[in-house]
Amino acid sequence: MPRIRELGTYESALPPGPRNAITDVAGVLVGHYTLDSGPATADPDWRPGNGPFRTGVTIILPHSGNLYEEKVAAAVHTVNGFGKVTGFEQTRELGNIETPIALTGTMNVPRVADALMTIMAEAAPHIGVGFPETGWSGYASVNPVVGETSDGYLSDLQARPIGLAEVRAALATASPDVAEGAVGAGMGTSCYGWKGGIGTASRTLPATAGGYTVGALVQTNFGRAEELTIRGVPVGKTLRPPVAVRPPESLGGSIMMVLATDAPLDARGLGRMCRRATFGLARTGSTCHGGSGDFVIAFSTAGRILDRPAAPPIPRAVIDEQPIMSVLSVAVIESVEEAIYNSLLMARTVVGRNGNVRHGLPAGEVQRLVWGGQAL
Amino acid sequence: MPRIRELGTYESALPPGPRNAITDVAGVLVGHYTLDSGPATADPDWRPGNGPFRTGVTIILPHSGNLYEEKVAAAVHTVNGFGKVTGFEQTRELGNIETPIALTGTMNVPRVADALMTIMAEAAPHIGVGFPETGWSGYASVNPVVGETSDGYLSDLQARPIGLAEVRAALATASPDVAEGAVGAGMGTSCYGWKGGIGTASRTLPATAGGYTVGALVQTNFGRAEELTIRGVPVGKTLRPPVAVRPPESLGGSIMMVLATDAPLDARGLGRMCRRATFGLARTGSTCHGGSGDFVIAFSTAGRILDRPAAPPIPRAVIDEQPIMSVLSVAVIESVEEAIYNSLLMARTVVGRNGNVRHGLPAGEVQRLVWGGQAL
Amino acid sequence: MPRIRELGTYESALPPGPRNAITDVAGVLVGHYTLDSGPATADPDWRPGNGPFRTGVTIILPHSGNLYEEKVAAAVHTVNGFGKVTGFEQTRELGNIETPIALTGTMNVPRVADALMTIMAEAAPHIGVGFPETGWSGYASVNPVVGETSDGYLSDLQARPIGLAEVRAALATASPDVAEGAVGAGMGTSCYGWKGGIGTASRTLPATAGGYTVGALVQTNFGRAEELTIRGVPVGKTLRPPVAVRPPESLGGSIMMVLATDAPLDARGLGRMCRRATFGLARTGSTCHGGSGDFVIAFSTAGRILDRPAAPPIPRAVIDEQPIMSVLSVAVIESVEEAIYNSLLMARTVVGRNGNVRHGLPAGEVQRLVWGGQAL
Amino acid sequence: MPRIRELGTYESALPPGPRNAITDVAGVLVGHYTLDSGPATADPDWRPGNGPFRTGVTIILPHSGNLYEEKVAAAVHTVNGFGKVTGFEQTRELGNIETPIALTGTMNVPRVADALMTIMAEAAPHIGVGFPETGWSGYASVNPVVGETSDGYLSDLQARPIGLAEVRAALATASPDVAEGAVGAGMGTSCYGWKGGIGTASRTLPATAGGYTVGALVQTNFGRAEELTIRGVPVGKTLRPPVAVRPPESLGGSIMMVLATDAPLDARGLGRMCRRATFGLARTGSTCHGGSGDFVIAFSTAGRILDRPAAPPIPRAVIDEQPIMSVLSVAVIESVEEAIYNSLLMARTVVGRNGNVRHGLPAGEVQRLVWGGQAL
Repeated sequence: MPRIRELGTYESALPPGPRNAITDVAGVLVGHYTLDSGPATADPDWRPGNGPFRTGVTIILPHSGNLYEEKVAAAVHTVNGFGKVTGFEQTRELGNIETPIALTGTMNVPRVADALMTIMAEAAPHIGVGFPETGWSGYASVNPVVGETSDGYLSDLQARPIGLAEVRAALATASPDVAEGAVGAGMGTSCYGWKGGIGTASRTLPATAGGYTVGALVQTNFGRAEELTIRGVPVGKTLRPPVAVRPPESLGGSIMMVLATDAPLDARGLGRMCRRATFGLARTGSTCHGGSGDFVIAFSTAGRILDRPAAPPIPRAVIDEQPIMSVLSVAVIESVEEAIYNSLLMARTVVGRNGNVRHGLPAGEVQRLVWGGQAL
Repeated sequence: MPRIRELGTYESALPPGPRNAITDVAGVLVGHYTLDSGPATADPDWRPGNGPFRTGVTIILPHSGNLYEEKVAAAVHTVNGFGKVTGFEQTRELGNIETPIALTGTMNVPRVADALMTIMAEAAPHIGVGFPETGWSGYASVNPVVGETSDGYLSDLQARPIGLAEVRAALATASPDVAEGAVGAGMGTSCYGWKGGIGTASRTLPATAGGYTVGALVQTNFGRAEELTIRGVPVGKTLRPPVAVRPPESLGGSIMMVLATDAPLDARGLGRMCRRATFGLARTGSTCHGGSGDFVIAFSTAGRILDRPAAPPIPRAVIDEQPIMSVLSVAVIESVEEAIYNSLLMARTVVGRNGNVRHGLPAGEVQRLVWGGQAL
Repeated sequence: MPRIRELGTYESALPPGPRNAITDVAGVLVGHYTLDSGPATADPDWRPGNGPFRTGVTIILPHSGNLYEEKVAAAVHTVNGFGKVTGFEQTRELGNIETPIALTGTMNVPRVADALMTIMAEAAPHIGVGFPETGWSGYASVNPVVGETSDGYLSDLQARPIGLAEVRAALATASPDVAEGAVGAGMGTSCYGWKGGIGTASRTLPATAGGYTVGALVQTNFGRAEELTIRGVPVGKTLRPPVAVRPPESLGGSIMMVLATDAPLDARGLGRMCRRATFGLARTGSTCHGGSGDFVIAFSTAGRILDRPAAPPIPRAVIDEQPIMSVLSVAVIESVEEAIYNSLLMARTVVGRNGNVRHGLPAGEVQRLVWGGQAL
Repeated sequence: MPRIRELGTYESALPPGPRNAITDVAGVLVGHYTLDSGPATADPDWRPGNGPFRTGVTIILPHSGNLYEEKVAAAVHTVNGFGKVTGFEQTRELGNIETPIALTGTMNVPRVADALMTIMAEAAPHIGVGFPETGWSGYASVNPVVGETSDGYLSDLQARPIGLAEVRAALATASPDVAEGAVGAGMGTSCYGWKGGIGTASRTLPATAGGYTVGALVQTNFGRAEELTIRGVPVGKTLRPPVAVRPPESLGGSIMMVLATDAPLDARGLGRMCRRATFGLARTGSTCHGGSGDFVIAFSTAGRILDRPAAPPIPRAVIDEQPIMSVLSVAVIESVEEAIYNSLLMARTVVGRNGNVRHGLPAGEVQRLVWGGQAL
């Protein structure tokens, strides 16, 4: 399965980084745990609780150090809040995140948040305890940031199979190489009536704008087949999945969009980046369904916010983003758009619970419709 | 232990309801599960993971029907977002809640959210599944609303002992009689250097303002002893707990404030009620510490929002709150203020992990300082 | 000059209303005052203060009654807040508007707001005064809602020529027939390097979704030529205005998007409509520049919110929008997208201050690029 | 007329600065223009349009340089949005302000905003014009920040007498000495049934928290007599103005709260300061009426945000406020509370339009009720 750039000439206002991935932002790592188990056969008597499972968890690490002790500046944004993300309130208030970002299937969120608590308490044993020598500290908890989309069409959503072991397994694979498609949190998702999944892309800014890098990683699970638009071409008008999808699917769907940059922005500047992700999403044809949980999380790898800072606090350097906001905006929009395409093209056909099928978007057909059919 | 009104004349602009509790709003029920286990002895070698526990869970039911099938209008507000509440994004977007509201100790939140998923899926088996006869529905997940404050001074926070069985137990006790003090989610909390806990109060509006009822329930876990103010009297200037609290406690603390009303407000009107809760909190002396997670959730019991509504939707009746906003505001402020006092006065002394002690606020001393010492 | 639908087959998921204009929402009227005065000659010594003027004001009336006495439900949304709109705080708080919506050139905003105060005080003389018989009323002020984009490339922005007489003139022309292009607040604006202006479009929902109408009116003043995308075709890659635009224009630009509906939504539901407008904007190629003031205002013509309501308030009927949110979303997105195209195609070439030129987008070229060149 | 500290011992957690005024933040200046003209006689036939006037404008300058060229970091917060402030959207987006902050009577806001445009365009002639040598710049407008409360009980609100000359006059008096009471924007306001006005106070942080200064300036125009609380004493229960106020005044009222600091906070940190102002307001007895426009604006004098920055932007130093947030919070709360008391005590009795009277709060009575009657 090819990434979108392998299908034809892909013009963009800004060039991608070397991997064309969120991990082009130095220090960022991504890991997946994929759970693909249980029969893929139709069963009219199927009942939830025992699988089958087409789900997983994807972890984004802003850096490979101790995230609780060295937090990073961050912001969140809700495009349409029909979703069960966790950790957003504290991120808004403090402008930082202190755990890896985890993405998973909707109903796994609490168990993944619980797993992150365990893992962070191992890394920072004073969580929830404080320091005996100085008394109880109010800093003593941890704010897991977990996003989700619903993979209930292919996977047993009620059964919630992703917990501590699975999160640990995803962390163990964290690397700058980002697998895409039906992996991790993308194992069971659906996008524009096709198999969705994980996708990523990046852009680099010119030296006059600081030479920074912006990367996006998405978990795609939204849209109807007829809406799919690729590079402006209304692909979904003619290209449809073999299996007709029954109503009322139109009410569902969701996307998680994670943005990384090495630009030393404050949380407000990162929030402006978040709000641009919507434009990248819209380019692919999304109409932001009422039942879509569409969320954005952005972080900067520049600087560290210490859990136990000096008193008085030592200043750190930020830039006012306004002079480079327009180019940052293009970087976000182009990264998100391309990451969505990659999430589709890199996803294979998956058959899940009760024989439900999501077909992989056929790259050849896309190439034909968008680039006029040059051979791959 | 007395409620504040038993200590002396308690003037208020609006009268309380018959129970002076959130359950004066017809149909609202409250249940607790209290976990009080493990030794209360000092142990310099104490390590987290095995208790002791001074924690619990408190459940507020907007009505006793099937909340997933018949949701209620709701709003949330973040005063200071240093906290781990869950379910806020969807409540903001849709203006409703579809599960009981659960309050607990901070690190229990994921497990309580997970428990609510199980419980709601039992009540509405189509959650995460959809309806086989009509295809997969995008409505098929559930948004647990869980609030928290940190009881880590008295309880083993890392161990997270509250899960499905405990939430079921709390639900089983749901009733219009609201236990206060060191119960449920208030078992292990601290407030103004004293033992905090659960408190409640209510107010009724005059007939010219619709005759509606407003109720508040709080989980108190914030403030320093010297800040405590009761009915305007700076009680904390002279009344201090026997055990000096070590720094840096000032960074911690939190409060959850839940508001109920039978006024048929829309989510925006409920949001205006939420923002008034801050004024009630301030009356008790709070300075809204940087590490305080201060959150408000409000719901209306008037009307139902069906999970599977008619198409096109059938209108329901709401009122424009502005003509009665000022009196609603007084009702919220007075209820929250009085609920906080009740949470303190009704809480007994509790000794917890590693011998840490929170003393119950001595009612006699409060009476002496505020009312000049009339006998109880 | 043609509207976009005159250029070729225009497929859309939902059909437009009879006028394909915001005034398809029954009762809505639009009026313009256009100020086109002063020389259009290059003058290197030009200084601001005396024109020339290529500016104006556009008025949208939710109904033709007394808007102060009978307010309508409304919401606002800020996509990128680099702008000088007024009236947003009160609209957010109360969920209604009580004046016509006025759009104008940026620096005219205060004078237009001042004019609306005069006009509303004539309609409701108790504004700022109250009722002598009952004492001074706190309701006694008025909240003008004014939006803007900067027409400073073609018009003398500093001079601020739009005030009371001009607003009265615009109101006097209010009608269901909406002039588009270089009229009213669109007289001096620029869009994608071409002449922008006023555009409008509408959509009707199917009977199963209530049969409601959604309309959009935009004032376009954003984007770079190379970004222009029409119906997915990257028109701006090849079609460029004759006059090269000098840097650093990329930092500027703005759009005002006004949405109307007869669906009886509450303010939260209208806010959800507002947030969908971004998707329509994105479809035309916008990258949401850092210096772009991109704002949305939505109102419902269903129901009235009385300035002096009964006590206690009488309920009014609203619908929960979620069951029809997806189709409302499509209606908003398609209306905004098409309104932007109309604003461009209906705008003639304008030469303004110091000889600055904005060329009208050539319809024939657009037709050729998008529809393959069928004759008009 | 005395300030509150002249009435008795005034304990506070933090000490005030040398002036106990917002101008203790180095560089901040305050100026007033007071308009007190026209008869103060009862006239049942009074009609608006020609005075009398009891109004004015107050200007807060973050620094005495060119504010447009050298902006300062800022944030805004809306406690209850029933008001007509302007400039909030851009401040939220960019996190800075670029004009002096002006406070005035409600219906003067547009004319004062218009005046600030004139004044800033004199200081920065490229506003709305750009630079001929480099082309039209999108930075070319200006965002006036104007707050208000309604002085319509004493002044002819409809007539709007405050414009360019009056704003210039206020700027000409800018100084570190802050006049309080019935001056500037406080000339015609009412607070807790008494004469309100302008008040100010400040606090300094300990060296361990950076030694920063926080100052507040308020324009008070809210509350009912029975609500007034001073230092916890329910003064309003017994102390009432001689003239009974007729209903329905309870729906009105407002407060503007302006905060300054030299702490190098980013806009998010300043926003956290803003949200604490509510707690100071609540301490004085406010119940946040439905018709109250309660707004907060905060700025930092540390650092400058250049209108025409270097490319790429040069970093500037900010601190993460969390380690000092609790003490910043106390500084804000105590400053706002004390500034409100000063606004009342420093305001003389004023008789205005149609003979309407607002009595100055009698300092002797306050001293007797709060401090037990020690001689002044």
